[in-house]
Amino acid sequence: MSDEFTLGRRLPELVETMVESYERHPNCRHIDRAYLPAKRAVEELIQRLLELVYPGFFGRQDLTQHNVSYHVGELLPRIGYLANQQIFKSICYMNEIEGKDDDDACRKHAGGVAEEFLANLVAIRKKLDGDVQAAFEGDPAAVNCDEVILAYPGLLAVSVHRFAHVLYKLGVPLMARILSEWAHRKTGIDIHPGARIGGNFFIDHGTGVVIGETTDIGDGVKIYQGVTLGALSFPKDERGRLIRGYKRHPTVEDNVTLYANAIILGGDTVIGRDSVIGGSVFVTSSVPPYSTVTIKPPELKIKDRPQEPGSTAALPDYHI
Amino acid sequence: MSDEFTLGRRLPELVETMVESYERHPNCRHIDRAYLPAKRAVEELIQRLLELVYPGFFGRQDLTQHNVSYHVGELLPRIGYLANQQIFKSICYMNEIEGKDDDDACRKHAGGVAEEFLANLVAIRKKLDGDVQAAFEGDPAAVNCDEVILAYPGLLAVSVHRFAHVLYKLGVPLMARILSEWAHRKTGIDIHPGARIGGNFFIDHGTGVVIGETTDIGDGVKIYQGVTLGALSFPKDERGRLIRGYKRHPTVEDNVTLYANAIILGGDTVIGRDSVIGGSVFVTSSVPPYSTVTIKPPELKIKDRPQEPGSTAALPDYHI
Amino acid sequence: MSDEFTLGRRLPELVETMVESYERHPNCRHIDRAYLPAKRAVEELIQRLLELVYPGFFGRQDLTQHNVSYHVGELLPRIGYLANQQIFKSICYMNEIEGKDDDDACRKHAGGVAEEFLANLVAIRKKLDGDVQAAFEGDPAAVNCDEVILAYPGLLAVSVHRFAHVLYKLGVPLMARILSEWAHRKTGIDIHPGARIGGNFFIDHGTGVVIGETTDIGDGVKIYQGVTLGALSFPKDERGRLIRGYKRHPTVEDNVTLYANAIILGGDTVIGRDSVIGGSVFVTSSVPPYSTVTIKPPELKIKDRPQEPGSTAALPDYHI
Repeated sequence: MSDEFTLGRRLPELVETMVESYERHPNCRHIDRAYLPAKRAVEELIQRLLELVYPGFFGRQDLTQHNVSYHVGELLPRIGYLANQQIFKSICYMNEIEGKDDDDACRKHAGGVAEEFLANLVAIRKKLDGDVQAAFEGDPAAVNCDEVILAYPGLLAVSVHRFAHVLYKLGVPLMARILSEWAHRKTGIDIHPGARIGGNFFIDHGTGVVIGETTDIGDGVKIYQGVTLGALSFPKDERGRLIRGYKRHPTVEDNVTLYANAIILGGDTVIGRDSVIGGSVFVTSSVPPYSTVTIKPPELKIKDRPQEPGSTAALPDYHI
Repeated sequence: MSDEFTLGRRLPELVETMVESYERHPNCRHIDRAYLPAKRAVEELIQRLLELVYPGFFGRQDLTQHNVSYHVGELLPRIGYLANQQIFKSICYMNEIEGKDDDDACRKHAGGVAEEFLANLVAIRKKLDGDVQAAFEGDPAAVNCDEVILAYPGLLAVSVHRFAHVLYKLGVPLMARILSEWAHRKTGIDIHPGARIGGNFFIDHGTGVVIGETTDIGDGVKIYQGVTLGALSFPKDERGRLIRGYKRHPTVEDNVTLYANAIILGGDTVIGRDSVIGGSVFVTSSVPPYSTVTIKPPELKIKDRPQEPGSTAALPDYHI
Repeated sequence: MSDEFTLGRRLPELVETMVESYERHPNCRHIDRAYLPAKRAVEELIQRLLELVYPGFFGRQDLTQHNVSYHVGELLPRIGYLANQQIFKSICYMNEIEGKDDDDACRKHAGGVAEEFLANLVAIRKKLDGDVQAAFEGDPAAVNCDEVILAYPGLLAVSVHRFAHVLYKLGVPLMARILSEWAHRKTGIDIHPGARIGGNFFIDHGTGVVIGETTDIGDGVKIYQGVTLGALSFPKDERGRLIRGYKRHPTVEDNVTLYANAIILGGDTVIGRDSVIGGSVFVTSSVPPYSTVTIKPPELKIKDRPQEPGSTAALPDYHI
């Protein structure tokens, strides 16, 4: 085997040039700085939150009415500990950027945010119950709600989003983003933690869905794979830098359905309530309530194509 | 550090409100119920199955004609054990829903299904050999079949589908769905375990592909990333509930090619044999055999756009 | 429980038929052959490379100017060891196919390639610094460069591509492909290691992006989710086999932006510099520099649709 490969005396030079590169490109290093939230701890936090809101579906299987309180009594302090720890890191990190460095103030602030977060969990669970129901009612392939919780990636993404959105509103956006990206990695569904999403929300299949930061979604909305709710263009300030933080993603009103690969763009674009946007439709301006928007069916054209090697029979050929 | 965060005397109240929430939203809990199939065990099962059907590519690397029988002799009982255990859970779970609870009958039923599953593995392997060959013959970027097995997500998704489909037909759909979702998570390819797929099937790249439960796919079909084989609309019964279980996804005949992001919808939609559906084409009605369906090429329009800041030269602008 | 399931006396027969299947379908086995590169080791290599190029963002968090050299001094030999080991396997594997089997020559060759790879890391890091900057400048949702490095899947995919592309050019394409597929699995972004990508490259969201082997991308290019840079058709030789290795994917010049789900196909297709290709646009021929190509806006049509159960008011209906 090739185990004997060593850098030998070239090691010091390689180390030196790499460390020099750290100095030359300081954006790509995080040295002598407050700690960032740790992905691994955030992942455990997500796992524990799922165990808490969907008991018996994630984690322990042997739950009964007799032992369930003990289970929750063990789970909640662990969630509190993990949440507080990563919120603390997020806040210290932001404080450092703003030039503050009062460790005690940061700890106190983090504790308050963590408490707020925990206090939101019952309300989140209530919303998730509506999402599970919407998935079951919206998909003829769903056998029952158990299958939805156990195996629907859309529900996983929405569940994590509801946690992330609370963290975003509580002022820890970087940590919220790490939660969102975890869900994106697992499901292919990319929901920015800033997006506001109403009740009974259902994403089916979901791969490729993108929901931007300033999107507003009403109640009872249904979205299929590949749908984008995005920005139309990015205005810049007088120094040529992107302007950040304004409303640039669409508003989707109650009971709208967006079929596969539909693209809806722009902060002024409103999809009126009870509308249906068909597959692959591209929309950059508002649509009135109760509308149906679809692609024109393909026109039929005939052209020659050999049916078998050698043959040249006239064959149907469609152009859209 | 912030390690000292504790819930203190608020813990009992937090536990209580959460447990109350379990009672208020019983769909989102699985308590006092038969166990669900366990994702982690299903994942190990998939891993072992891949080691079995692609020996030397997954798992152990040191296989020779002399030791390979011992390897298989170790692998098969483990696969049998894992399959039987999770099938048992799936069947007990379904029996409980139907009000049956004869543990012995369930164990016997599970054992029979597990045996059937094992008996199918050689036939599955034969099909996969055709899929590997189809991938190599269908992609000029493939160097050889080894690369296809080692690194093609499409083959991974199809391999897992062939296992899941057998489980689906043997009457354990929830377990089958957990296999499918594992593959979806790894590859972005979402094939419902109910879909029927012929031989020599090739999905290239694959992210975003969705193949619905009642889809029928012939032999020698080739599918690219982002393709949807979906339902057109969902009829409801007189009480407003979705009707489940009828044919609602397309039929794709032999030797059809579906290019990137094509969307084919509807249970009556048949893509006739040897047809080619171009990229981004949206089809909701049948296409005759030997057809080519493509999007119209974009029309050229000219509009002003500044070539450099300040300039206002006439510039080409295309509209489709 | 069902733990007692055993294959019993059927085991020998099951083993035998499976081993026979290995002989019948030799493409799907890798027995009595040189080892393939091992996915797990390649994954650790990727992890260590990310720790090296983004210190403090991946792996250890406690880095300071005082300890960073020791960190790098520990990391580099591990990277060297892992890279050399897997490069060695890749080269032995290729040599075996070509009928060579000089283990010493292979080891020497591998050592040289590993050294070359290590010598490229500082240059890769410089390119990645430009990519981070491009992401921050291109996305109004990005708070700062830290967020980009920590949570942007596009940057992860591009980072792994820059490592994989160097390995591809150094003659270990199979290993390069394993790196690429790792990134594809994590991000939904499928970049073939052969693709040539200029500086300051930014992929936003990214799920569903496919960039083919012979694609050429200039500097400052920006790509959104679902974009395909693909081949138009695959010519075959006189024996009906695919011709491999020729230029079949597009060229994208400097400062081009490709919006969501755009599909650009063909080896002769050139997207001229500073052009903008709108969402869902399908292009199979060249586009002049400074062009804007968009889909036509939908035409408005009115059709009846009941606004409420029972009502039959005229309602807007769009067709594209």
